[in-house]
Amino acid sequence: AVLHCTSFLQDFSTFYLHLDVTPCLCVILSFRLLTRLQTSASTLRTLLSNSFSQNIPSCLWKLGRLNHVAIAVPDLDKAQSLYKDVLGAQVSETVALPEHGVYTVFVELGNTKLELLHPLGEKSPIASFLQKNKTGGMHHICIEVDDIKAAMAELKKKKIRILSEEPKIGAHGKPVIFLHPKDCHGVLVELEQA
Amino acid sequence: AVLHCTSFLQDFSTFYLHLDVTPCLCVILSFRLLTRLQTSASTLRTLLSNSFSQNIPSCLWKLGRLNHVAIAVPDLDKAQSLYKDVLGAQVSETVALPEHGVYTVFVELGNTKLELLHPLGEKSPIASFLQKNKTGGMHHICIEVDDIKAAMAELKKKKIRILSEEPKIGAHGKPVIFLHPKDCHGVLVELEQA
Repeated sequence: AVLHCTSFLQDFSTFYLHLDVTPCLCVILSFRLLTRLQTSASTLRTLLSNSFSQNIPSCLWKLGRLNHVAIAVPDLDKAQSLYKDVLGAQVSETVALPEHGVYTVFVELGNTKLELLHPLGEKSPIASFLQKNKTGGMHHICIEVDDIKAAMAELKKKKIRILSEEPKIGAHGKPVIFLHPKDCHGVLVELEQA
Repeated sequence: AVLHCTSFLQDFSTFYLHLDVTPCLCVILSFRLLTRLQTSASTLRTLLSNSFSQNIPSCLWKLGRLNHVAIAVPDLDKAQSLYKDVLGAQVSETVALPEHGVYTVFVELGNTKLELLHPLGEKSPIASFLQKNKTGGMHHICIEVDDIKAAMAELKKKKIRILSEEPKIGAHGKPVIFLHPKDCHGVLVELEQA
């Protein structure tokens, strides 16, 4: 995919440099080329997305590592103790995230982490999940992507429903979206901008 | 925890080396010491476990990385296509594991993997899960441990129920155990010998 992008840029510059133009025009064009080359990767992908998405869709965004597995728990202290005192994992303090309606505890597993969630406030997004799953349970998985806007555009085309019109700022301060569990075989999938 | 182990070995060797013995006896004792030092880490942990477990329990075994997140799906081809064609992940071929009653597909995420599961045969361990969760869902998480026997011994002491008396050989050919979801806040946790 990256090769495709590079190849496009090379063709683009070759096009400019082979024009039979006066030196002055050449400078202007080179400057415009330079400006274009300095465009961020994200914007470039969006530009490409508009004109080339049907030919090279895999160029536009890339799925990354598993950021975390979120587990909703009815008792955060007990869950914290299970992972810390019984299983011996490195466990964070409890962090309140009122803007997300949750208390969180992070369990470090070396290559990724578990995110223990407990409702905070009356409008907590995990309250109804815990009403259905009294003892707790796996709530969602979060996978990183390198370009969340490009991911959204492609997923919409491929009829995967996204639970918000725009990305929201997630628990780690980065843009996130959630994919509809019914379009992901019963799994609530969060995509987070890496 | 490792420091505790090292410290024990140093005390042990100091004990031997400070004995007032003839050179011949010293050679014999040194040889026995060497043999003991060459004992595998696993056996050493078991030896330590028998005599010192109440003092240094955290020395005995260690939780490792997240090996995989298992997702039970009602249609393996469609699930495979979601992760491969829509999300662009690297996805394995379908592997039949008749001894485990499942078909599996591995989704590579760089730091860990998803394991898509579909029932194989009438006694599949995931058949009842899919009857309750028609569209599929997260089935279990698998975390690696460096000594599954030591983990079992400690978890039993700490009243965490294990779903088998002995480890079984899991889908990756390594010993595994499953912890009771009710003792793990609604999550079925698999521990796999790393």
